[in-house]
Amino acid sequence: MKVLVIGAAGMVGRMLARHLLDSGKLGDSTVTDLTAFDVVPADLDAGSSAVRLSIREGDIADPATVDQLIGDRPDVIFHLAAVVSGEAEADFDKGYRINLDGTRLLFEAIRAQPDYHPRVVYTSSVAVFGAPFEDPITDTYITAPMTSYGTQKMIGELLLNDYSRRGIFDGIGLRLPTIVVRPGKPNKAASGFFSGIIREPLAGQEAILPVEDNVRHWVASPASALGFLLHAATMDLAPLGARRCLNMPGLSVTVGEMLAALEDVAGPQTTALVRREPDETIRGIVAGWPRDFDPARAMQHGFVADASFHDIIRAHIRDTGARPESG
Amino acid sequence: MKVLVIGAAGMVGRMLARHLLDSGKLGDSTVTDLTAFDVVPADLDAGSSAVRLSIREGDIADPATVDQLIGDRPDVIFHLAAVVSGEAEADFDKGYRINLDGTRLLFEAIRAQPDYHPRVVYTSSVAVFGAPFEDPITDTYITAPMTSYGTQKMIGELLLNDYSRRGIFDGIGLRLPTIVVRPGKPNKAASGFFSGIIREPLAGQEAILPVEDNVRHWVASPASALGFLLHAATMDLAPLGARRCLNMPGLSVTVGEMLAALEDVAGPQTTALVRREPDETIRGIVAGWPRDFDPARAMQHGFVADASFHDIIRAHIRDTGARPESG
Repeated sequence: MKVLVIGAAGMVGRMLARHLLDSGKLGDSTVTDLTAFDVVPADLDAGSSAVRLSIREGDIADPATVDQLIGDRPDVIFHLAAVVSGEAEADFDKGYRINLDGTRLLFEAIRAQPDYHPRVVYTSSVAVFGAPFEDPITDTYITAPMTSYGTQKMIGELLLNDYSRRGIFDGIGLRLPTIVVRPGKPNKAASGFFSGIIREPLAGQEAILPVEDNVRHWVASPASALGFLLHAATMDLAPLGARRCLNMPGLSVTVGEMLAALEDVAGPQTTALVRREPDETIRGIVAGWPRDFDPARAMQHGFVADASFHDIIRAHIRDTGARPESG
Repeated sequence: MKVLVIGAAGMVGRMLARHLLDSGKLGDSTVTDLTAFDVVPADLDAGSSAVRLSIREGDIADPATVDQLIGDRPDVIFHLAAVVSGEAEADFDKGYRINLDGTRLLFEAIRAQPDYHPRVVYTSSVAVFGAPFEDPITDTYITAPMTSYGTQKMIGELLLNDYSRRGIFDGIGLRLPTIVVRPGKPNKAASGFFSGIIREPLAGQEAILPVEDNVRHWVASPASALGFLLHAATMDLAPLGARRCLNMPGLSVTVGEMLAALEDVAGPQTTALVRREPDETIRGIVAGWPRDFDPARAMQHGFVADASFHDIIRAHIRDTGARPESG
């Protein structure tokens, strides 16, 4: 089986590629070839993997590049590439070019291949929803994005549904919760603090908390995100009918609950490293985000949420070798 | 005030253009210039109107054509042009080219003009919804199109919302009910019989009814559609916030109720001209259409539905000079 990961240099894409290289499997199928594509070369090596790894870089909005990627006729395509929320809002043209035109070029390149109907797994976002929200948000709530990023992701979903309905490919879209705890260094995303308040204290470093403890958010662990992608790539999609894009299961937790779990797992000297420094801008952005879902369809179709925020923290400690001073 | 009607050769576009020419007004503003654009020349004449009428033909998906149209900097743009449902389903490329690329080119041409923020009134469709339906469909129900046409219309809505949110233009989208009674000759649309069973008998001609009497549908009169467009062009859109696309108010009526109203207005010898000839294909298509809405937002913002189906029939008789044999 040939697998193509578009957006392989990002956190989720790299984790997915690493898993495919290490396991050599996708469901019951043996992965023979993995193409890891991104705008920059993905930091991956095949190591002892039996999978043939091809790392490629290029522009997803360039037709020749996309035609070449699809010319290899991968069996499964993970399309994770996107200009993220803040950048798509700041750079109108770039957001539409990568997130809309790039996605459409990809879908059109698939359509252009004769007798070719691959599985397409597309990462969407809860940014397809906009305030006011249903609480919790159900599977039939209106998608009304309030950012250009959310607009572009939603257009990608609509295209994916239509191309799938017409049998051009067999697609599924996953609206991922915010991934917590993101490994690596702090980033500039407005949602970054949700990971930072766990990751930095566990590494013995101070973290800034810019919002109140009662702020509620919808999160899933990196391991859950990986599990969603693998399940999406291998499940039977016919039962989904025409609605191919699903709210992924997550945990709805408040900042206060996150910190209480951190204290349970790693002790009060760890949570003492969280410094409250309210930031009106971030508070405003976060106030516009969905905070709770009832992801009934996804769960009915076999997607599984994290068991608890305690487990998310413990998994982060295990995966990264973070050593809390006690706990 | 300069007004541009894109799709001026269609039934609704021509009615709108005729109204603007005859009244010379759009709300409180005097219309000085009207450009009537379509892929074929609109059948319109200025007559004694003080409005300067320019009839143009061209391809909405051709950038130079669109740039030229927008180069005139119309104050109000009605974008009614579309490849309709059946054709967009039969011709994938044409549907996406006209309905998606054409709409995006138009919005981009507006963005390219410096200091230019026109009113844009876009006709969408209840085809943005797909089964299973909420009953009635409310303003927060998921839009899940099950046709390429509905997909393309929904993408247009998303773009309109995003461009409006960013202040590029001041847009509003109207999801029109099926227009009944359409004047003129029978057409090939699957929904055509909803008009035909009223229009043809009133003209003394036989009409075919391909579905059961208990089939329920969501309809509005041509006069209501015109009213929606005029109100959309002149109302304050700021209170709509980021959700600029509205389910227009209509009447939810069964075929049986339509025929009972026809008999009340025009007598049993008129309804006797309706011949029941079940058509499984049309029954199947109609079964996938939404049948009832609770258009609360639109009504709250001043859009008004027809009072009754009796009134719709009487208005058709008045407007077209149809003469039922009695009644």
